[in-house]
Amino acid sequence: MHKSDILIIGGGPAAMVAAGTARQYYPEKNVSVLKKSDESMVPCGIPYVFGPLLESVEDDMIPCGDMAAKMGTELIVDEAVDIDYDTKTVAGKSGETYGYEKLIIATGSIPKIPEQIRNYDAPGVFFVPKDPAYIRRMHDAVAGMRKIVVVGTGFIGIEIANEFCDTGKEVALVGSRLLKHSFDPEVSSYMEQIVEKKGIVHYKNRRTCEIVLDSDGHACGVKFEDGETIACDGVVLATGYRPNTELARKSGLSMRQGETIYVDEYMRTTQPDVFAVGDCAEKRHFITKRGIPVMLASTATAEARVAVANLYSINLVKSFSGTIAIFSTVVGNTCFGSAGITEEDAKKQRIDIVSTVVKVTDKHPAKLPNTHEQAVKLVASRATGQLIGAQVVGGIDIGEMINMLGVIIENRMTVFDLLGLQVATHPLLTSAPTTYPIIVAAQNLAARYLSKK
Amino acid sequence: MHKSDILIIGGGPAAMVAAGTARQYYPEKNVSVLKKSDESMVPCGIPYVFGPLLESVEDDMIPCGDMAAKMGTELIVDEAVDIDYDTKTVAGKSGETYGYEKLIIATGSIPKIPEQIRNYDAPGVFFVPKDPAYIRRMHDAVAGMRKIVVVGTGFIGIEIANEFCDTGKEVALVGSRLLKHSFDPEVSSYMEQIVEKKGIVHYKNRRTCEIVLDSDGHACGVKFEDGETIACDGVVLATGYRPNTELARKSGLSMRQGETIYVDEYMRTTQPDVFAVGDCAEKRHFITKRGIPVMLASTATAEARVAVANLYSINLVKSFSGTIAIFSTVVGNTCFGSAGITEEDAKKQRIDIVSTVVKVTDKHPAKLPNTHEQAVKLVASRATGQLIGAQVVGGIDIGEMINMLGVIIENRMTVFDLLGLQVATHPLLTSAPTTYPIIVAAQNLAARYLSKK
Repeated sequence: MHKSDILIIGGGPAAMVAAGTARQYYPEKNVSVLKKSDESMVPCGIPYVFGPLLESVEDDMIPCGDMAAKMGTELIVDEAVDIDYDTKTVAGKSGETYGYEKLIIATGSIPKIPEQIRNYDAPGVFFVPKDPAYIRRMHDAVAGMRKIVVVGTGFIGIEIANEFCDTGKEVALVGSRLLKHSFDPEVSSYMEQIVEKKGIVHYKNRRTCEIVLDSDGHACGVKFEDGETIACDGVVLATGYRPNTELARKSGLSMRQGETIYVDEYMRTTQPDVFAVGDCAEKRHFITKRGIPVMLASTATAEARVAVANLYSINLVKSFSGTIAIFSTVVGNTCFGSAGITEEDAKKQRIDIVSTVVKVTDKHPAKLPNTHEQAVKLVASRATGQLIGAQVVGGIDIGEMINMLGVIIENRMTVFDLLGLQVATHPLLTSAPTTYPIIVAAQNLAARYLSKK
Repeated sequence: MHKSDILIIGGGPAAMVAAGTARQYYPEKNVSVLKKSDESMVPCGIPYVFGPLLESVEDDMIPCGDMAAKMGTELIVDEAVDIDYDTKTVAGKSGETYGYEKLIIATGSIPKIPEQIRNYDAPGVFFVPKDPAYIRRMHDAVAGMRKIVVVGTGFIGIEIANEFCDTGKEVALVGSRLLKHSFDPEVSSYMEQIVEKKGIVHYKNRRTCEIVLDSDGHACGVKFEDGETIACDGVVLATGYRPNTELARKSGLSMRQGETIYVDEYMRTTQPDVFAVGDCAEKRHFITKRGIPVMLASTATAEARVAVANLYSINLVKSFSGTIAIFSTVVGNTCFGSAGITEEDAKKQRIDIVSTVVKVTDKHPAKLPNTHEQAVKLVASRATGQLIGAQVVGGIDIGEMINMLGVIIENRMTVFDLLGLQVATHPLLTSAPTTYPIIVAAQNLAARYLSKK
């Protein structure tokens, strides 16, 4: 039997961060990572292997063996098939047994199979798994295709459609309004204009019911529920991911709604000495406190850091609880960020809110070259003024501006707190101090209370 | 006598924000702005009128009259020469008297005169005041100069040297290490390498004692204390600013160390119904709690918003107190940000600190085009782990990353809080979730406490 002090199952970002953090905090413990292959992909980089920005699939690859060695951890290439919580052992497909003192399950997520779409498994139809071998085959297969239909209007669907388009392919994008879980309708509309301007045809609010096959059984079209069919050379089903929890379920671990591994705020499962982190572990929303299927490498790595700090005793008493669902992406040359809850979702959850949008330029004076329009939407609790959601659109600095808004939301700051917020402004880097949009938006909301009208 | 409900003296960012905010919160009050001329400049944009990015001085101009009209406020062009706090009136140079119910003093700052430099007032020697007429004259005068010496290694000195260099001038930059109040020596060194690579000659730790004059009495060189002289066609003295408080002092307002107007946390002076905001008002440091001459339009506008919210009653009970001294700038193609206290200053102030630097790339995978190196330095209290300072270097997103760090510092977050911080990461916008440098730096510091070594 192979014996580890700290055993981590999985090989994605959460697993690698857990391993590195464990080495840093517990240098006297031996740490092993058990995963199916000796390489991983940068998961959010996958859409970019299909576009002009990366030269090949290999540019997105992480050599896990080298990385593990550098961290002083052992990489075990094997597949975990069962866990015995009484004997504290994991059974490998190879027949080997792996003992542990502390176990971290980080098995991630896998593409959701859209059973409602006929022929979803035909040749010429692809999912987007975080599987290097699959992505290499898919990359070669799509290279020669002229027209591709991407089904799914979440982040991966839009990003991969954008990349196909940038390599000169004809692209159709099928689904609902763009990024409807992360952005309000007006932001989706703006994104849709950009997508359509690029030449991507957006089949909005169309449900796909069948992959049409040619005489060889290869995908040659997509059929919608209303009967319309569009022809293509291949189909990408970017129809979401589900937690990869077969191992956990099979081994008898407590699950939440049968889907994710139940964990407390310290990432502890119901079994002693067993933690779960990342896409496979339960997520609650910071604002609504309800379960939410947010799958983000950044959240996963945060969970890994929290779990490892608390492996042997609770060292980090949590002050924040739940995911703030913080995302960013790029469509064309425009960047989008979202954190917290959208106005639409807040209303659905019966949260009484106020909201406002402020538009400025991201440099000042606006006559400077390379100036980009910037828009900030804030959503706050009507009663308390607490900021509970933010959406931003603009240039490349949006990536960190949404993170700033994330810190604001996590700290439960109110629009009143934001009135006196201190920010650095610079002509070449930000909007003007007089118009800094987060503060101006906060002031517009605060005025409802402070105005003596 | 002219009578206003709310009278604001000054015309910079703080004055304009105070006017707009007053209109928003107190629509039934009439609001007047009293200033010397009917135009202003974007203050931090001034260096850029001397470079290739802006076409002319006019691109950096703010038409205050139009702006005031748009806000529904009155712009009075006159110079305030005295204030009578008993009769609540301001005397104008024109002979007019201006009555007020509430008065906000926002007279800003003016260049500090370096009396120790002989001939500082000779023709061919320029300061950098926020004065449109002066800057227009200066712009025309320097246009024909081939070699310029910039004395002063603060933000304005470095930025204006950078712009002169970009228009093909020969530039010498004289002073101490670059931005020594905002960055630690290793960051200054990195900035110095960039400056020197551009061809700017940096005379480091050289003190200027005299402007050398030609036979016409025009500046033709700069002489250092060690006797060395360098020839030039003109000199810019970017040797700092001082609060413009003559009016306040003359009218008998309480001053702090004779320099800035004493204000409490709500921006109230010692006179009833009189507030002061911006560069003319006292600043205390958020961390050291000592007086600090930080002059920032962003801080000034934050103070204006706080003052106006509290004009008639305290509506915003302050949760944060003091300036976090948050700055950003660009040198060459590299962006720099600083917030809180530097390691060097913390040690001088006998604050027991720990610090760390983390270097990553600002996109992931690093093979993506236009990837920039990114470095984050964190300074935290050794005992409590509270983050008290941050310095960042990298691409254009540094402008908002330093603002994120500002929010972290203002919220008194600790390195432990940052371990579970939720951030959005995206291949084209940020470093990887596994290496996000603020979190990795926090973890390096937290490891000192959490490590079981």
